Amino acid sequence: MEPSGIITLTSDFGLGDSYAGALKGAILCVNPRAVLVDINHNIPRGSIADAAMAVLENYAFFPPGTVHLAVVDPGVGSRRRPIAAEGGGYFFVGPDNGVLWPVIDKLQARAVHLTDPRYFRKQISTTFHGRDIFGPVAAWISAGADISSMGPAIADPVRLETEEPFVEGGRLHGRIIRADVFGNLVSNLRRETVLKFIGHGRPHIRVGGLELFHIHRTYSSVPEGTLLALFGSSGLLEVAVNGGSAAQALAPDPPKNIEITIDGPDIGPRVDPRD
Amino acid sequence: MEPSGIITLTSDFGLGDSYAGALKGAILCVNPRAVLVDINHNIPRGSIADAAMAVLENYAFFPPGTVHLAVVDPGVGSRRRPIAAEGGGYFFVGPDNGVLWPVIDKLQARAVHLTDPRYFRKQISTTFHGRDIFGPVAAWISAGADISSMGPAIADPVRLETEEPFVEGGRLHGRIIRADVFGNLVSNLRRETVLKFIGHGRPHIRVGGLELFHIHRTYSSVPEGTLLALFGSSGLLEVAVNGGSAAQALAPDPPKNIEITIDGPDIGPRVDPRD
Amino acid sequence: MEPSGIITLTSDFGLGDSYAGALKGAILCVNPRAVLVDINHNIPRGSIADAAMAVLENYAFFPPGTVHLAVVDPGVGSRRRPIAAEGGGYFFVGPDNGVLWPVIDKLQARAVHLTDPRYFRKQISTTFHGRDIFGPVAAWISAGADISSMGPAIADPVRLETEEPFVEGGRLHGRIIRADVFGNLVSNLRRETVLKFIGHGRPHIRVGGLELFHIHRTYSSVPEGTLLALFGSSGLLEVAVNGGSAAQALAPDPPKNIEITIDGPDIGPRVDPRD
Repeated sequence: MEPSGIITLTSDFGLGDSYAGALKGAILCVNPRAVLVDINHNIPRGSIADAAMAVLENYAFFPPGTVHLAVVDPGVGSRRRPIAAEGGGYFFVGPDNGVLWPVIDKLQARAVHLTDPRYFRKQISTTFHGRDIFGPVAAWISAGADISSMGPAIADPVRLETEEPFVEGGRLHGRIIRADVFGNLVSNLRRETVLKFIGHGRPHIRVGGLELFHIHRTYSSVPEGTLLALFGSSGLLEVAVNGGSAAQALAPDPPKNIEITIDGPDIGPRVDPRD
Repeated sequence: MEPSGIITLTSDFGLGDSYAGALKGAILCVNPRAVLVDINHNIPRGSIADAAMAVLENYAFFPPGTVHLAVVDPGVGSRRRPIAAEGGGYFFVGPDNGVLWPVIDKLQARAVHLTDPRYFRKQISTTFHGRDIFGPVAAWISAGADISSMGPAIADPVRLETEEPFVEGGRLHGRIIRADVFGNLVSNLRRETVLKFIGHGRPHIRVGGLELFHIHRTYSSVPEGTLLALFGSSGLLEVAVNGGSAAQALAPDPPKNIEITIDGPDIGPRVDPRD
Repeated sequence: MEPSGIITLTSDFGLGDSYAGALKGAILCVNPRAVLVDINHNIPRGSIADAAMAVLENYAFFPPGTVHLAVVDPGVGSRRRPIAAEGGGYFFVGPDNGVLWPVIDKLQARAVHLTDPRYFRKQISTTFHGRDIFGPVAAWISAGADISSMGPAIADPVRLETEEPFVEGGRLHGRIIRADVFGNLVSNLRRETVLKFIGHGRPHIRVGGLELFHIHRTYSSVPEGTLLALFGSSGLLEVAVNGGSAAQALAPDPPKNIEITIDGPDIGPRVDPRD
């Protein structure tokens, strides 16, 4: 696969320090022509699951051949393996702690254990492998190096345990997995899953004591200040407030679960009629 | 006009999520050589007026041919039009909600309604037109596409209602329009307006119960911790504290209005003598 | 020296306003091919010492020929000189207020007083020399301009007074100079200094009422939630909590001093045995 020359960065470094900058410098030392794009440096500290979701939800918005680098690495310096993977037209680099599992699993990507120090910085710290290992490896890949040359193939990348939606007793059970910056409460219910479950019935959504009976098309489908359910831009069902924050509206106890049942046949619009 | 290949981004996405990253990916899918520069992703949520000011105050600091993209879009998915405009040597792209009005008005820019889906992503969400419409359109313009080919010309872009300074009873009335990150209270009084009003008189500035009698040249013209008035780097009159924050100094009731009168002839320096 | 075309940015502008964006525009007006990398825009407001450390700790992670721009400039518009420096294979640009002193001193860099307005923006504000002087100068250097042509050499750049570690009464005295974004408390004790002091003895570290007897290899060398001492990725001794924040653990009185003595001969591991 031809690299695009683009490298994306996802980390929990925040922007209040120089770590993201040092990582970029280390990349540019290897490939000065790499194009660097931040996906998100404000992943909650140490949250492998949030970083994994950020990569999974965003990798495909970039040109094929892009290298996606994910550095949430609480086990840095321990025996956890550094890995790279290739699949679905993209490359991925990060620690083998589950952060790459969702994309490896989805894309049936082949993974290698990064063992060849020729692709690392000469001096490797024990606390910042983003700068010393993952960044340089991503840079080499973006410049055309083959991941097969970087270490042995592995068949057992660390899995990320995630709670998947399930149907039980005629009820689709999902979880709220995060609040986004707008205060939208994003669930793990994908559009396909929800529409298949609903079929031609009328959805009845229960979330944190609330009951919602429509899946709207967009925020402004309801009056300002009104709570609604809709599919967000990643295709996940979310609870939002038009012009406001659902996370705030439902504080101090933001809901953790979301459930859908079918209330008889579809007598009203299942989704917003303009859909 | 020759595009510079540069695209600037102004939004209310914040940096705590992946939205700005996804937008950049969508741009690079269309034009992998585009140079992306963030102006500000921390526009107050949904504030069309703040985004409009950020574009107006900063567009001209970029090379001619730059595409300025502004995505503060509370009406996303509703009937508000997506538009692009060209004028004064620059391009502008965003929702037709007033965010581009100040530059369109100032530059007498010609605007088009973006209707041709060839310039959009193939799949268009109802909640993220930044990624699915505005970003790709900006990328096409940065690569040389003509906005005339993107949809019909429009003569009625949505205006942004702004409070303009006015003179009444010998008094120049302005508004504090925001506190910047340094806590400087920025007004809507432009240098030209103020100097013309003052003429050869002695200014007497009233703001939030304070009275100031000089317009200083720079922060360090006064002792540390002292309040002063000066023209900021965008040419707007602001109230600041040398080495401190005027917003904090005047909390909890930051002033909303600023007024200037003339106290007789100019017996002292109208502005700092080093000016 | 051949420029790399890369310019790094370190400032106290924050990311909540458009100042960093305007600075980048001003750079691209001079050199549209410059590659811009943020090191840190969240330097504490006006802290020359923190900006100086950010430049000192990070400059060498970038390719030789990189221009490092540091704009923490509380004296903007006063008589402090704008300067540029060249040494150790890198370029540096900023106000002559001490922010560049550590790199000038370490690299024995030659410095010039920037006096030639051909390298500045045409219009120079009194409040934003980052955009109007330092950015354009950095851009000219990144495009190959010789700093000798920009103004007279100076032999007296402003020094930054820093507290250096010292040994007294058999005790190595250091200071905690900052908490990083992870809450790690970073000291001014460099790895070389500490290892030389310890020799073959057993270290006894005192910091804020705590006593630590090992310098560990990495965060995960101790159980989660445990305080430890280790050398961070910049080679400075730091106090951290595995999976947590030392700054929070030691609030509300984070330690300011750190001291090391030798407790007899080395009967245990001086540093983590895996080192």
